[in-house]
Amino acid sequence: MNVLLTNIKQLLQVRDSRVTNLKGAAMKELPTLENAWLLIENGVIHNYGDMVATPTGSFDKTIDCSGKIVLPSWCDSHTHIVFAGNREQEFVDRINGLSYQEIAEKGGGILNSARKLQETGEDDLYMQSAKRLEEVMKLGTGAIEIKSGYGLTKEAEMKMLRVAKRLDKAYPVTVKTTFLGAHAVPEKFKDKKEDYIQLICDEMLPAVSAEGLADYVDVFCEDGYFSVEDTDKILTAANKYGLVPKIHVNQFNSIGGVSVGVKHKALTVDHLEIVSDDDIRELQHSETMPVALPACSFFLGIPYTPGRALIDAGLPLAIATDYNPGSSPTGNMNFVVAAACIKMNLTPEEAINAATVNAAYAMGLSKTHGSITKGKKANLIITKEIPSYGFLPYSFGSNCIDSVICNGELL
Amino acid sequence: MNVLLTNIKQLLQVRDSRVTNLKGAAMKELPTLENAWLLIENGVIHNYGDMVATPTGSFDKTIDCSGKIVLPSWCDSHTHIVFAGNREQEFVDRINGLSYQEIAEKGGGILNSARKLQETGEDDLYMQSAKRLEEVMKLGTGAIEIKSGYGLTKEAEMKMLRVAKRLDKAYPVTVKTTFLGAHAVPEKFKDKKEDYIQLICDEMLPAVSAEGLADYVDVFCEDGYFSVEDTDKILTAANKYGLVPKIHVNQFNSIGGVSVGVKHKALTVDHLEIVSDDDIRELQHSETMPVALPACSFFLGIPYTPGRALIDAGLPLAIATDYNPGSSPTGNMNFVVAAACIKMNLTPEEAINAATVNAAYAMGLSKTHGSITKGKKANLIITKEIPSYGFLPYSFGSNCIDSVICNGELL
Repeated sequence: MNVLLTNIKQLLQVRDSRVTNLKGAAMKELPTLENAWLLIENGVIHNYGDMVATPTGSFDKTIDCSGKIVLPSWCDSHTHIVFAGNREQEFVDRINGLSYQEIAEKGGGILNSARKLQETGEDDLYMQSAKRLEEVMKLGTGAIEIKSGYGLTKEAEMKMLRVAKRLDKAYPVTVKTTFLGAHAVPEKFKDKKEDYIQLICDEMLPAVSAEGLADYVDVFCEDGYFSVEDTDKILTAANKYGLVPKIHVNQFNSIGGVSVGVKHKALTVDHLEIVSDDDIRELQHSETMPVALPACSFFLGIPYTPGRALIDAGLPLAIATDYNPGSSPTGNMNFVVAAACIKMNLTPEEAINAATVNAAYAMGLSKTHGSITKGKKANLIITKEIPSYGFLPYSFGSNCIDSVICNGELL
Repeated sequence: MNVLLTNIKQLLQVRDSRVTNLKGAAMKELPTLENAWLLIENGVIHNYGDMVATPTGSFDKTIDCSGKIVLPSWCDSHTHIVFAGNREQEFVDRINGLSYQEIAEKGGGILNSARKLQETGEDDLYMQSAKRLEEVMKLGTGAIEIKSGYGLTKEAEMKMLRVAKRLDKAYPVTVKTTFLGAHAVPEKFKDKKEDYIQLICDEMLPAVSAEGLADYVDVFCEDGYFSVEDTDKILTAANKYGLVPKIHVNQFNSIGGVSVGVKHKALTVDHLEIVSDDDIRELQHSETMPVALPACSFFLGIPYTPGRALIDAGLPLAIATDYNPGSSPTGNMNFVVAAACIKMNLTPEEAINAATVNAAYAMGLSKTHGSITKGKKANLIITKEIPSYGFLPYSFGSNCIDSVICNGELL
């Protein structure tokens, strides 16, 4: 099966395979080929070039991309899309001025999401999650990380991860899974957090590992959730099972989460709405990718991650949706790219790099995703006819996507 | 031609024809019919009711709305969608830290939009604008106000309004037009603002009126643009031609724009990012509708209109997109409804009322638009299968619209 894309107005993010992530000033560059063709063979990018020398031969399908821009699909490196039910009532309660306690009593919050998830059968959970995955694929997401963390029991956490693995098998999108047992302390461990951490380390991690359900481990390192010491303990335990950390840090407070992440060679540290100079220095001496989640900031009204300052400090940056029912009920990476420009002052080049090359790095997919590179997966976005790629973040309320190719398949 | 909608999960905004606008606490109510049918005849809402008693007879078309919510189309009472070219480069320049002066020198700002518009032929301008109108119709907008204001010469202002009138004739959406000659002072009148105001009053207004091109008159009443005295003069002149004011006030400063608007019985005062207690008192003793433009606040990073405070003070409120190339490059009313909830703390009921009933009032369309009322235009949004109408603002990054009916036609 081969597919030829012709007359591409601009082919974005054309990279050598050795480029795995971009830092600081390098994020300003977006290598582009004008008036190009691209050939897909068996689901991978076989070749590409200038229209002055188009390939000859017969092709199963030819797609005319006149006036259209082609770029690699978004990689969404931080989501919680496997969940049961929605929490729009909680959103409305919040507008109506209900307190956190009142919302929790009415059935809101992570712990109540956990109860709902525990009561939902695996097939039902799969169907609900598949619907979300199908939506975000149409919005251009070609690789997605999915966390557990609404289970909070061994069984329910594993149920979530099994659903994520089933999604990976059933859809052309690439799925990476992360075990986030340490998302919140369950009600029954209210005054016995240590016991819950022990359960994570002694029972959940071995079980998750034995079934090969997780690629990464995550901890919500934050005041009122898991301390730096708790995080250290869980990451140390996870290390025995070969699980690399991708952790929630600095959403509300800078308590040392970045430091413990770097110590454990975390692939990513995510959120970072609050960042100290020490945090920046730690990251400068690491291979850890900071990940910003601007849709969460928009929805909750909390500060945006100072992405501009991180890049100006020479750091790399990835952006992701944080799709979840409580704090970021969207999986639309196009909005995230726009918000990164509008709210975090990233240039379109920086935002696109943050959502493709660097986002692929943030989920361990540098070899196969995130750029237009021979041999990488043919995961592509074909835009509508738009005047320039700057139009993507500029027209933040429009859907600029004409069609999406995932693993060589036209959706 | 008749069309029957059956099995509607919820029919929203079912109102008596006497309800023309909602103030204060009344905005919290959204009258709803569960499990309903609705019959369209010859482009108007003929009748509706409970599925226990569905109408019998034969219908040209029957649409099954199982699991779906039906509501009146959005009315977008403040846009500038007739413009030439886009300004995404200016957006990028702003991110890159260019000053206003540098951006203007590179070809940005209203005055440069005006130059571009003056150079664009009427047919080209029509084609560019029609594309935008088609997009927003698919996003659920069933009535739209369009302003001039990028012409700034008699000829160019009239060209813009003629294009808006052509759009009204060519599309099923209802278009209202507003003459905004006083959008900015043109370069050639730089130190002779009084002369430009004279030109507006003595030449533009008579010409616009003679051709019947405008329903309303608008002025950008703001420091550095047109003063309260300038505004008073223009509105007084417009009054002779029967043009009711809908004016730009309080975007950056509260300089008395609300007061001069109320004095001239303005139908609406729009923007209101900065509101004083005096402004609120003026509005409490008027029939003038305040209009908030949250997409502009999002894009520019300026304060959101204190919509919550206005409603709590017993006022009505409408919301609109402000679609324009410089400060709000979106015509997506769904985003505006979401942002009104997320950023201005309106409940879903208040935001939907602000975008339908009150928005119809804000463009003089109370008799025909803005609610599910027998005899009103069949301008309807049919949502996808969603759990509740609160899901519309909650899932701010999703397109929840399944289909749109405009003037009885399924788009």
